[in-house]
Order: sequence, then structure tokens, then C-alpha cells
Amino acid sequence: MTATIDRTTDGVYIIAATPFAEDGSLDIASTDRMVDFYLETGVSGMTILGIMGEAPKMAADEAQRFARHVLDRVAGRVPVVVGVSAAGLDNMARLAKTVMDAGAGGVMVAPQPGMATEAKLRAYMAQVCDALGDTPICFQDYPQTTGVQVSVETILGLARDHDQVVMLKHEDWPGLTKLSRVRAETGTADVPRLSILTGNSALFLPQEMQRGADGAMTGFAYPEMLVQVVARHKAGDVDGAEDLFDAYLPLVRYEQQLGLGLAIRKEVLRRRGVLASATVRAPGPAMTSRDHEELTRLVARLEKRLEELA
Amino acid sequence: MTATIDRTTDGVYIIAATPFAEDGSLDIASTDRMVDFYLETGVSGMTILGIMGEAPKMAADEAQRFARHVLDRVAGRVPVVVGVSAAGLDNMARLAKTVMDAGAGGVMVAPQPGMATEAKLRAYMAQVCDALGDTPICFQDYPQTTGVQVSVETILGLARDHDQVVMLKHEDWPGLTKLSRVRAETGTADVPRLSILTGNSALFLPQEMQRGADGAMTGFAYPEMLVQVVARHKAGDVDGAEDLFDAYLPLVRYEQQLGLGLAIRKEVLRRRGVLASATVRAPGPAMTSRDHEELTRLVARLEKRLEELA
Amino acid sequence: MTATIDRTTDGVYIIAATPFAEDGSLDIASTDRMVDFYLETGVSGMTILGIMGEAPKMAADEAQRFARHVLDRVAGRVPVVVGVSAAGLDNMARLAKTVMDAGAGGVMVAPQPGMATEAKLRAYMAQVCDALGDTPICFQDYPQTTGVQVSVETILGLARDHDQVVMLKHEDWPGLTKLSRVRAETGTADVPRLSILTGNSALFLPQEMQRGADGAMTGFAYPEMLVQVVARHKAGDVDGAEDLFDAYLPLVRYEQQLGLGLAIRKEVLRRRGVLASATVRAPGPAMTSRDHEELTRLVARLEKRLEELA
Amino acid sequence: MTATIDRTTDGVYIIAATPFAEDGSLDIASTDRMVDFYLETGVSGMTILGIMGEAPKMAADEAQRFARHVLDRVAGRVPVVVGVSAAGLDNMARLAKTVMDAGAGGVMVAPQPGMATEAKLRAYMAQVCDALGDTPICFQDYPQTTGVQVSVETILGLARDHDQVVMLKHEDWPGLTKLSRVRAETGTADVPRLSILTGNSALFLPQEMQRGADGAMTGFAYPEMLVQVVARHKAGDVDGAEDLFDAYLPLVRYEQQLGLGLAIRKEVLRRRGVLASATVRAPGPAMTSRDHEELTRLVARLEKRLEELA
Repeated sequence: MTATIDRTTDGVYIIAATPFAEDGSLDIASTDRMVDFYLETGVSGMTILGIMGEAPKMAADEAQRFARHVLDRVAGRVPVVVGVSAAGLDNMARLAKTVMDAGAGGVMVAPQPGMATEAKLRAYMAQVCDALGDTPICFQDYPQTTGVQVSVETILGLARDHDQVVMLKHEDWPGLTKLSRVRAETGTADVPRLSILTGNSALFLPQEMQRGADGAMTGFAYPEMLVQVVARHKAGDVDGAEDLFDAYLPLVRYEQQLGLGLAIRKEVLRRRGVLASATVRAPGPAMTSRDHEELTRLVARLEKRLEELA
Repeated sequence: MTATIDRTTDGVYIIAATPFAEDGSLDIASTDRMVDFYLETGVSGMTILGIMGEAPKMAADEAQRFARHVLDRVAGRVPVVVGVSAAGLDNMARLAKTVMDAGAGGVMVAPQPGMATEAKLRAYMAQVCDALGDTPICFQDYPQTTGVQVSVETILGLARDHDQVVMLKHEDWPGLTKLSRVRAETGTADVPRLSILTGNSALFLPQEMQRGADGAMTGFAYPEMLVQVVARHKAGDVDGAEDLFDAYLPLVRYEQQLGLGLAIRKEVLRRRGVLASATVRAPGPAMTSRDHEELTRLVARLEKRLEELA
Repeated sequence: MTATIDRTTDGVYIIAATPFAEDGSLDIASTDRMVDFYLETGVSGMTILGIMGEAPKMAADEAQRFARHVLDRVAGRVPVVVGVSAAGLDNMARLAKTVMDAGAGGVMVAPQPGMATEAKLRAYMAQVCDALGDTPICFQDYPQTTGVQVSVETILGLARDHDQVVMLKHEDWPGLTKLSRVRAETGTADVPRLSILTGNSALFLPQEMQRGADGAMTGFAYPEMLVQVVARHKAGDVDGAEDLFDAYLPLVRYEQQLGLGLAIRKEVLRRRGVLASATVRAPGPAMTSRDHEELTRLVARLEKRLEELA
Repeated sequence: MTATIDRTTDGVYIIAATPFAEDGSLDIASTDRMVDFYLETGVSGMTILGIMGEAPKMAADEAQRFARHVLDRVAGRVPVVVGVSAAGLDNMARLAKTVMDAGAGGVMVAPQPGMATEAKLRAYMAQVCDALGDTPICFQDYPQTTGVQVSVETILGLARDHDQVVMLKHEDWPGLTKLSRVRAETGTADVPRLSILTGNSALFLPQEMQRGADGAMTGFAYPEMLVQVVARHKAGDVDGAEDLFDAYLPLVRYEQQLGLGLAIRKEVLRRRGVLASATVRAPGPAMTSRDHEELTRLVARLEKRLEELA
């Protein structure tokens, strides 16, 4: 049975790394360990082949093989969202069909560069929805990477005009007021509810939850923190949530370094025994020995701080 | 008496250079010659302190002195539009008041970088209109330079919501379909007419006139061509207009080189006896000796071609 | 036998469209006609799967099938350059190997976005050369699209440090002085010669030839003009070359509209009987009926002008 | 007596806000309070009219009046650095002379947009140094805002070629490895030492100090934290420094929101009794009531955490 996303989806959707062996080939054993690890931390879903991942560096058949393997391992226990952003609609529709047939719970689509007016973006998303049929879509609002600014009005329009657009991945920055507005102006008589999961490496997760986000979709290498912060907010323990978050904040900030963050994230997963190798495909970022020492120090400080809190 | 722009303004508004002496100081004698030269070519108006000019390199009092001098010399014979785009509304309002008091016929405003959604841009233009009172405004749509994409819908909104916004300087690129749409969707029951003058160094002037532009606002160093091409279109001699334009096209294209074009334009005006010096303020582009030879060749070819056409 | 590019390559390398049927599928019959048409116009080479083409909208196996078909049809009569720019080196190397094995004459590589300092770009190109082995490389300098500014010093460095980098596709803009400098500072005691073919839709082709370019690599829908302009320059008939070019300049300019230009180019090829359909894959530009009329008018004016010149 | 910056300058150079009254006019009384407040926190210097401040929204004479007032109030107790970045060298040189004559300790210069190759940037900085004479210069490396990427090699070149370039304001991001390299490769036999002060709202201040930065140049509204973190690092109390920093990190992160951060910073200074009004000049960011509540909560949490640490 397939679990899918909808307008009420909540919790933590962890953005999964793509594990590679030292020689750069797909590492299936690490993939299995990683899926199990994520599920054990209590995530509500998983996102693969995301925009900041290494999907563009994989061969098309390799990406499909990876997606199928993850979907098999997850086996419907949680929804898996697959990034399908592509220059052409044909390629997007083909990948979407393949992964939905294989059990994905939805797809994620970001605007293509150049969709730089509201009118163009709305026309594009209408084409996308037409091409994808009734596949549930998470719309990714990520101007820092796409170069496309999206107004609240356009987001409301997408929610209203397209049954398939059920989720917003919120990562405009600064974006807290935008989040408040989308929360207040959806789920009304005019505009249906949107599930809102937040990104930006979780740098503002407590503020986002307090403003009505349904959860997070990001790839922090300690998913258990994300899970607990979201859960505590839902349970009304706002201060407890924020205390825990603040303990991890030095590392959240460290992992949020654009580009380099991916290498750091993989290295943390390696140190935690999840990945066999922290390899990033070329061309890509690499940690220096100084970065490694710094990470060691930050992790040690985190562990000390968690003890204080316990 | 002051001549002002309005929703029916047409003809050629030449974008004036700012003449500097070899030592970089303002050259008033050349300014007088330049104003007389432009008026003799038959332009319908003049634009000074434009976005691609050297206004940002002038001291504030120097820019005001230059504006006042041009306005005195023109003496109300044609409207003079003054570029007032600025980071802050206070500075914009102050300059606008100064030049309107001195006899300017309107001001030109481009979106500030960062007004990158329709909602933000509309809010910004409402602030601008509020700050400028009833000063007639030419809205400059120039995404290549401002980084702000403006939809047809937003342009219609500006025309409808603000009495002061009477003119569109059209220089989106490619922008012919946008021009056709603005022409068709203004001057209707819902949206008042907009004067549309086109920029982009006149590279598409015949096509733009044939699609309903009211004229051109650009700085080509042979204003007499722009004047005749616009006049012939209005007189119905479309082929004659385009024949003349095509003769100049090699030079139009040459002058359209972003950045360097300003140096070429000043050099042509120098060669034509208008400016004493082609000096551009630092940091700025400079022609190489190879560029000078190339320009000489292109001008000689133009003269030969004009003889063939005569 | 395979024809390959090297440091002395000259002439016109036409950038080939990818022909699609009305339903968006690859049109093999039109591909054959197009290859024959290009060869009949006298081009010296062909470039496929280029950065501004529709390669990113094709499935990986479809792109390979298209490349193989073109290579078979050309059958070694002229070198075929294949665009292999990709986010990951693995994908780039795989495609390069496939097409070189199938008889390609070289590959074209543009910097990836983000290689935004000389140091990063040089390191990246070293990785590329390492991954591609001894495949001849055309380096594409196209900042308007890649966002990567490349200095003359870096181009000289690439020519000197990598035997494989044999050709520069020059399309910086404005770029005439850069072209003069690369020509003067290569083929010296320190830096080996580079073949320089120019792009930018040929808007400055005569000036570029007069400054020492070896030819053009662009996709204008009248390749016979490009061939003759290059040939006349080589034969010393500079004025004759420029006369012919200027006759086509209104259309060159019209086809140079970024994005829309591809639709215009395909439509001209359709009207000339080369392509069965002008279909561009979604999302993509489309000509309005006004654009069609405008094109008709411009083509009629071209034909009239060519008669005058004859 | 004037205090000036040099290659060994260290400590915290606080980036000063420009205080405005509710009606937007310059607030001199608040300016005095602010200068006194900054000096009491123990800062080693002050920076005014910075790139992210509101200098572009001030009239030229207003900016000079503000600078003179701050310089008078500081009265040589610490060096004051003045931002002089400008589109034209004339305006830059004029402002630099005015403020140096009035007792400034140096000026700060960022690359102008468009200086987008190393060669262009080096040529530009040579022009700048020529125009500014022997004024000590802090070079601001801030690609997110200027769009100009600067390599380590270019920074070393500036340090070596220009006696005046004595300080680097480091705010490339991610930029920790760059900082390590500049530290290691200056102060050598070939390249003189550079003072390195870091920006980016202090988000990585402990890591930067541990990698050899000399201090910070940023505008966090709790300068006493910056002062102590720098002092503790210099005293060898690295853990104590980082413990204190981490307590403030939730607020550091909150103030680092691009654009909005300025409004937050002014509001904190208002709440602390320093500014009479948090007014930001139009067009500018404004805090919502939700933002105000959020800030209140974050400040309360900070105070609680500081008590725990005490």
C-alpha cells in the first residue's frame, strides 16, 4: 500500500542524502542503513532526489534505480516524496510516472529559472499539473536557488487552482512573514488548506512551528532533533522544543553552509555509522582537515550541552 | 511655460549624454551645443540623468546644476524628462521637486533591485506615487539592468491605479509581444491609455512602431534617423521607414554594446562636432584604437549606403 | 573516418536544431533533411546538443540516439561537435565517450554556474580535462547564460595548460576587445594557438572576422550567409562580405531574441522546407500570429534586398 | 588626534546604525547616545555609512553631517571607518577626503557590480587606490551583495600591490576556508599582513576567531557579546568564548535575516534605550506585530540563558 502526501500532511520529511562509495558508485548497503536510520528516528516521510541533492549528477537510470530501491526498503511505511524538477516537461512527467508507479507518495517541483513573473510561473505550473495528472505535488519555493521570487498571492493561486498542489516547501528567506500569511490565508472559504513544511536547513524551525508550519522538510544529520522539536510543539511544549533546538543550533548553522553543507551532512552521517563513505560526486565540495577538526569540536560541544539538558 | 508628458505623448525623446571635459568636469559649452543639436534634429523631447547615463557618478549638486542648465537652454520648447531613480524615496522626491520646479516635464522611475514580486513592486510604486505627488511619471521596464521582471498585468495595474503613471519606457527584451499586449490592453474601458516609448538602443524600432509604440526614448547618436523613422511610420510610409532604419542598423547594433555603447555614442557625438570630448567618468568603458578604426569604417559604410538610398 | 577539431579549425560550425514532430517526438526524417541541408550550404562542421538547444529537455537515451543518427548521416564528411556540459563529471564523461566512440569530432563544455572565480574555474576545467582524456574540447565562454565571467588570462591559461582545449567558442558580450586580445596573445612562444569560432547569433560576425576569428559557431537559419561571409573575409573581400552580411542583419537581429529566437529559427527552417514542424518542447517559447506576420515581412524584405545586391 | 586602522588592527568594529526620528529626519540626540553606548561596550572602533546601512538613502550633505557628528563625538578615542563605495571615483574620492579631514581612521570600499573578473577587479582597485591617495582602506569582500566573487589570489594581490589596503572585511559565505587561507598566506615573506575583521552578522564568529581572524566588523545589537567573545579568544578562553556566543546565537541568527535584520537591530537598540525610534527610511523593511512578539520571546530566552551561565 502506498502512503501519499495531502493537504494535512505534517511531521518531519527528511531530505535523504544519496550514498556513494569511495569510487563514486551508488552504495546500496549504505542506502539501506540510511533508510532504516531515518525511520528509526521517527520521521513522518522522506524526500529523495531533491534540488540540493546530487540528483543532477546521477545518470537517469541510476536515479530511477536509487528511487526504486528506497521505495522498496520503505515499503509504504511513510510517504516518499521524489524531486522531479527538470528543464523539460516530458522528462519530468516520465520520472514522475516511474516513481509513482513504484510507490512514491508525491513529487516535488521547483520553478525553472526564467519563470520570473507571476504570470509566467502560473502558466508553467498549469502545464506541470497538466503533465503530471493527479500526482500529489509539493511546490518548492526556494528563490535563493531558483532565482524565481514567488508572492503569497501566487502561492494562494496555486493552492486554489490545482487540486494536485497539496504542499508548500517553504524556503524563501527571510520568510517568516510569508509563512504567517500563507498559513492565515489558506484553509479559508476561498482557498483550500496547504500542508506547509519548512526548509532552509531548519535554521528557524521553532519560529516556523510557532507560526503554524506543519513540520519540516530538510536534511539535518540529526533527524531525531527535528522529530522531537516538531513533536514538542504539537504537544504544546514550546519552551522545551526551543531549548532542545537551541542546543543543536550551532550545528544547524554549521550545516547550513550552502554547498559545503552537503559534505558536512554526509560526514556526520558517516561518523554516526550510517554511511560507509562521505563521498560527494565531482565537481563538489570537500571538507578540509580544519573543517574536520571544527566539526569534531562542535559535535563534542553538542554532546556536552545535551548532557546538561538531560 | 513648461511642456509636460502625458498619456498621449509621442515622438522621439532622445536620451542625452552628460558632456564632460577631458579633466572630467562638467562641460557647459558642449551641453549647450548638444541641446541645440538635439532640438535641430527634430526630437519631441529629451531625457536626462537616465539609468544608463552617468548620473550615479555625478555629485548631487552637480546633477542638479546640469539639469537646470539643460532646462534653461531648452526653455520649454519640448518636455524634458529627468531620471530620478534612487535607493531612498526622500532623495527621489527631493530631486523630482527640484527639477519639476525648474521646468521639467516629468520624471522617469525604474524599480529598485529587490522589488522582485508583483506585490512588492506595486507596493513600491504606490509609495513612489505618494512621494512624488502629481508629477507625471514614466515607468521604466528594464529587467536586464534592474533585475526586476514586470508582467503585463502589473503594467496595466500601474496605469489604472496611478494617474501619474502616464508613460511606459519599454525595454524588456525580448519584448515585442509584451509591447503588443500593453498596446492592446490599455486605452480600454478598464485601463487608461499609456504613452509607450521604446528603448533598447532602438534595435527593434520599426517592429515596435508597427506594433503601436508612440515613439522611441533612446540615445542613438544619429537622432535624425530616429525622428524620420518615427515620422515615416506615422505618415504610413512603413517601407520607407524601415529602409532608412536598416541603413543605420549596423551602427545601431554597434552602439548597443552594453557599457561600451556609451563611449561609442559620445565618440560619435564628438566626431559630429557636438561634444568637445568623449570623456566618460571613471570607472568607465574606453574605446581601443581598434574600436576607433572599426567605428570609422562603419560610419563610412553608413554614408555610402545613405547615398545609395538618396 | 572521423574528422576532428583542432587548434587550426576554421569555417562555419552550424549549431543544429533538434527536429521534433508536432507531438514532440524526435523527427528522424527532418533530421536527415536538416543534416543534408546544412552540408549543402557548405558548412565546415556541425554542433549538436548545444547549451541553447533543447538537449536538457531530451531523455538521456534520446539525446544519444539523436547524436548517433546525426553522426551516421554526416559520415565523417565534416567534424561534429557535441555539447556535453553537465552538472556532474560522470554524466559528462559518459556522454563524451559515447559520442566520440560514435564518431564525433570533439565536445563543447561551458563552465557550470558557481565556478565564479578564476581559481575555481581553472580547477574545474582541470577536472573536466582529466575526466575526458584526450577528447578535443571547445570551451564555451558564454557569461550571459552561465553567469561565469572568464578573463583573457584564464582563457590563455586553459590553452596553455590543457592540450585538449583546442577551440574557444567566443560569445562574451560585448566581447570584441576580448576577441582581439585572445587572438593576439595565443599562437605565441608561450601560448599555443586556439581556434576561435564566434557565437552570439552572428550579430558581429564581420567585425569578429576582421579581428581574427577563424569562423562562426552559431545557428542562423540561413547558413549560406555565414558560409559566404566567412569565405569572402578569407578571400580578402571584406567589403563584399560585409555588404552581404548587412542585407541579412535585420533577420540576424530578429533571430537573436533570447529564447524566442529558437522558435523563430525552427520556423524559418520549416518554411525553407527543412523541418516538417517548428515544434519546440515544453516549456518553451512560441511565436504569436503577429510574430509570424513580422517574420514574413522581414523575409520578403531580405529577398528584395538580395535581388538589389545581385 | 586621529586613530587610524592598519595591518594589525584588531577587536570589534561595530557597524553603527543611522538613527532617524519618527519623521525620518536625522536624530542627533540618539546618535550621541548610540556613540556613547558603543564606546561603553568596549568596542575597538566604529564603522559608519556601511554598505548595508541606509547611506544610499541619505542626501550627500546629510551623510557628511552625520559622519562629522559621529567623528566629533568619538573624538579620536577609537578609529572610525567610513563606507565610501560609490558608482564613480570622483564621488568616492570627495567623500573620503571630507571624512579623513574630519578625523576618520580609514575608509571601506566594496567592488562595484560588474567588476566580475579578477583582472577587472584588480584594475578597479588600482584606480581606487590612485584616487584615494594614502587613505587606509578596508576592502569589503561581500559577494552576496556585490555579485563579485573574489579569489584568495586577488586578495593577496591587493595586499601586496597596495600599501593602503590594510584590512579585509571578510564576509564571503561559506567563507571559513577562505579565511584560513588568507590568514596563512599573508604576513609571509611575499605578502604583508592584513587585518581581518569578519562580518556576516557574526554567525560564525567563534570559528572565525579560531581560524585567526583579528576580530569582527558587524552590527549586532549586543556589542558587549562581540567584545567579550573576541577578548576571551585572545585570552585563550576558547570554550568560555563559545559558551557565551552560543547563548546569543538564537538572536544572532534572528538578526541575520537579510533586509529585515536592520529593522530588528534598530528595534533592539530602541528597546535598550539607545535609539528614540526604530524608524527605517522608505522603501525599507518593517517588523510585523508577530515579529515584535517573537523578538520579545527571544530576548526573554536570552536573558534566562545568561542567568544560567552566570
